[in-house]
Parts: sequence; structure tokens; C-alpha cells
Amino acid sequence: MTARELVVLGTASQVPTRQRNHNGYLLRWDGEGLLFDPGEGTQRQMSFAGVSAASITRICLTHFHGDHCLGLPGVLARLNLDQVTHPVDICFPAAGREFYCRLRDVVPYFAGVREQPVAAAGPIPLPDTAFEFEAIRLDHRVETFGYRLIEPDGRRILPDRLAAFGISGPDVGRLQREGSLRLPDDRVVTLDEVSTVRHGQRFAFVMDTRMCSGVEELAQHADMLVIEATFLDTDAGLAHEYGHLTAAQAAQVAQAAGVRTLVLTHFSQRYADLEDHRLEAAKYFDGELVVAEDLMRVPVPTRR
Amino acid sequence: MTARELVVLGTASQVPTRQRNHNGYLLRWDGEGLLFDPGEGTQRQMSFAGVSAASITRICLTHFHGDHCLGLPGVLARLNLDQVTHPVDICFPAAGREFYCRLRDVVPYFAGVREQPVAAAGPIPLPDTAFEFEAIRLDHRVETFGYRLIEPDGRRILPDRLAAFGISGPDVGRLQREGSLRLPDDRVVTLDEVSTVRHGQRFAFVMDTRMCSGVEELAQHADMLVIEATFLDTDAGLAHEYGHLTAAQAAQVAQAAGVRTLVLTHFSQRYADLEDHRLEAAKYFDGELVVAEDLMRVPVPTRR
Repeated sequence: MTARELVVLGTASQVPTRQRNHNGYLLRWDGEGLLFDPGEGTQRQMSFAGVSAASITRICLTHFHGDHCLGLPGVLARLNLDQVTHPVDICFPAAGREFYCRLRDVVPYFAGVREQPVAAAGPIPLPDTAFEFEAIRLDHRVETFGYRLIEPDGRRILPDRLAAFGISGPDVGRLQREGSLRLPDDRVVTLDEVSTVRHGQRFAFVMDTRMCSGVEELAQHADMLVIEATFLDTDAGLAHEYGHLTAAQAAQVAQAAGVRTLVLTHFSQRYADLEDHRLEAAKYFDGELVVAEDLMRVPVPTRR
Repeated sequence: MTARELVVLGTASQVPTRQRNHNGYLLRWDGEGLLFDPGEGTQRQMSFAGVSAASITRICLTHFHGDHCLGLPGVLARLNLDQVTHPVDICFPAAGREFYCRLRDVVPYFAGVREQPVAAAGPIPLPDTAFEFEAIRLDHRVETFGYRLIEPDGRRILPDRLAAFGISGPDVGRLQREGSLRLPDDRVVTLDEVSTVRHGQRFAFVMDTRMCSGVEELAQHADMLVIEATFLDTDAGLAHEYGHLTAAQAAQVAQAAGVRTLVLTHFSQRYADLEDHRLEAAKYFDGELVVAEDLMRVPVPTRR
């Protein structure tokens, strides 16, 4: 299987620090590279992380606050400069289209752009994908969408079942392609008889929002959930006021939703140390917990 | 005297590298902070360099290529966030006003902005300055202006001359303010008789351009010249084609103009090592030569 991993390019909300660049997350997913919320400096963080512009196939913006989008022009400029020839879909809230246009139009036009303005929650029909992609509305101070990627369920061939039916060689591929196979004795074997369900993977990206049903929906059964945890519960009032989550809220929703790998990020500069975020989240979440650091790579957990 | 120094925030042209952020230069000049050509990531470089948004009093853009301006929104956002109350003049080529507006309008409006679009070469009447500020047209692929700061000449009091006239105490200040002083014996002493010329300092900023008369004019008698040296002379053809200078050209013009401290910057990523830039420039320039590195501080040389 080709690598599926999250490359963390930046983890700061609002103000970058010496340790943390503004947001930026590349999800490598087989041959795809989905860049989420490129904040200012993403282009350079890509250099540090060894991410080429050519590896980007989609760009997804949750909303148009600067720490989530000011890196877009630099990325578009780089796609141009590196003469990337494949198309790049750009998903963004349609309500912020004027901001998108300003960001797009401060650099030379990258001809590969395919704009995918998101006007309402629901599936986004991205071309040429092996997964479903969906936007779900969140609750921030401006129109904000979270995204999730859902790989359809597949079938996993069981070698012992194949052997029991005496199926081998090119017949295996034929059975997988056609769904059934007629044996020499005229019995028909279906794919279901020699395979089991291989659950598709799910990845969800939740940024910036108060707790709301959209967060819960996005998190549902996510193998990996990348979620903002701007504040600690001691600052829950601020979190609510500014439309953000606390580490405890993020962990609780992840636990309830059956998340496997939880990646907390988008930290307020007010916290010099993030050990408290880890401790607070660990109280509620018992899966794989990652407090994101810039340039970290987090593998999507292998299939269930 | 308050510090006058250049804080180098970034030194890369076009593409940032691990060692070099995109352009960005803060000139600290007594109580002023002039930010030149903030490329993407300038906001974070300011953190690394210990430069606060509040220390910025003017922002000067030479032209609207991304590596010279994509950091502007982040800086404006930061001026807002840090609740800076003083006005900030922003000089930029008037021909690129649409780009300026896009960059300004992707972030919340900073009320302190005083726009100073530059339509033609000549003095820019900046309010509240103790220096003259001037734009001079350069020769790049889009409308580009270089800038220079000229401190008017002053007078330096000569203590032995004061003593010879028997002038002391409050009379010294009166003579400086009024230009002349009547002595007890009715003789009138002029300021010129007890002082000598104190030459004003000059700072020039030259970015991106082919060699042209504007470069020569800007460099004239500069105490500090910050100038692009994108290429080496072996790539002089490329330099001319793309509207840039070589290290040799920058050094030659600096030498002819009587520059004291020459700061080379804006290097192409094609050169992994800049020792050749230093050697090439040193062949032609015998003053203080600085090959800029990110986060370097270069003092403006003390007055002649």
C-alpha cells in the first residue's frame, strides 16, 4: 500500500511563534496530496518537510481567516514556477469567494486550478478520486467548512478460501473484476464467498469551530481526525467566545465518534508548553493521541 | 545616538530555501522602523529577529512580485492584532495599486494605514520624518521603484571654538536654535563659526532591476546600500533577461558611487554557497562588504 500519512507543516493559530508556523497540513493519500489550510509560510515549510509543489493534487480551505489561507498565493506561485502540469482542485467556502479571488490574483495565474466553491454541506464531486470527499458546516465567526475523506469499503481476498475452491492464477483477478467466477465443475463462486469486507479508511479535518453537530459528524469513525484544540478547558469561555474548541472538547468528541488517531493542533500562542493539552485530552480519549508539532509525520493507522 | 541598523529578515529571491526566507528588511533609524519588501513569512521572521509590529512606522514596496510583497497581509494583520495605534505609511508603485488592494483586503483593515502610492520618481512627502525620502525608478519586468533616505546635513559643535568665544551653559543651546548669539561685548557669533558640517546619513534600497541610471542615482554617497545581487557574472545573460543584477554589477556601482557599507542580498536559489558572490564583489568594491544572511543585523556606519 502506498503511504498514507499526515505531514504537519504548521500548528499555530493566529500568531506564529519560533516553534510553530501558521497552519498547514498535507495529507498524502496513495498518489494524492491534499493540502489543508495553507497559512503564511507554508511554501517554506514544504521545503523543510521535503514536500514538493508537484505532490499537491487538491487544496482545501476551511475558511478565510489569515492563519488558514495566507499561504495560498505562495503555493499557487510555486505550482506555476515548478511547471506543475496536473490540475489542482481548490475547495473553499463559496461565501468567501472574494477573498479567494484576491489571494489567487496577487500571483501569476496557475492554469491547473479547478475551483470547487462549497456553498452547502454535502459531497464534493472531485474528479478522478478513489475516495468520496465531503464538506460539513462548522460554527465559527465566518462561514467555515470541515472536510472528510471516505474511502469506499472494498473486499479483502482470503487465500485459504481461494485454495478451498481451487482458484488460482489469472482466475483470481477475473473473480475480483467480475464479482463471480464459473469453476470447471460449473459451480459459480462469488467474490463474497472468498473475501471479507475491507473497511475504507476515513480522514477528517476540523478547523475552526465551536462544538457543534458538524464536528460530531465529521469525526464519526475517522481513522484519523485532525482537529483544532486552540484552548484548554480553563479557557473554555474564550474558546466559545472566539469560536474555538478546547483540548477536552476535541478529545471527548473523538472518543464518542470512535476515532483511532487524534491529532490536536492550532494552538494559541498563550500556551508555551502543550503538555497540559496532552494531559487534558488523555483524560477523555484512549486512542492514539498526537499533539502536533511542526514537520511531524503521522501515519494514518493501518486498516481496521 | 539611537541605533541605526538593518535587520535582515529574509534574503531569498523567488523561492525560499531552508537557509533563506523570502525578502524582508527592517531599517531601524532612530525612532523609526522602515520595513522594505516584506515577502511571505516576514511576520514569523520578525519573531525570530525580535522585531515587534509596533516598531514598524513605514512599509516600502519596490514592486509587486510575490517574493517582495506576499508578507504584507500578515504584517497588516499583526499591526491590527497588536493594536498598534500609530500610523504606518505604505509606499508602493501606483501602477500596482490593484495588487496592493488585494493584499490589503484579505485581512482585517488596519486603520493606521496611510497609503503613499508612488506614481513618479521624486521625493515622497512622508509626514513626521526627520529625513527626506525619495523614490527612483528602476528597470525590472514590472514597474519598480528603489528608495533612498537622506538625512539633511546638520552642524557639529566644536567645543574648543565655543571655549575660545567664552560660550557655555544655556547660550550653547540658544546659539544652536537661533543660528547666532550676541556676546556680552556685542560681538555676534554665528553657528558656522563654532561648528562644522555634520553630513547627513544616506540609506538606499535597490531591488529588482537591470543596471540603469536609477541604480547609480540611488547608490550615490550611500552610507549603506542594500542591493539585489541575484546572479553571478557567469549568469549575466540570465540577469539581464530577467531584469536583475550580478554581484559584480552591484559592487561596481557601489564603488563608483562612494558607498560605505554594501549589503548584497536577494540571491537565486541556484547558488548553494555565496562565497563566490563575496569574491566577485570584493574584486570591485573596497568598502565594508556584507553578503546578507537571514536574521543578520548590520549597523549603519557611524557618520563620516
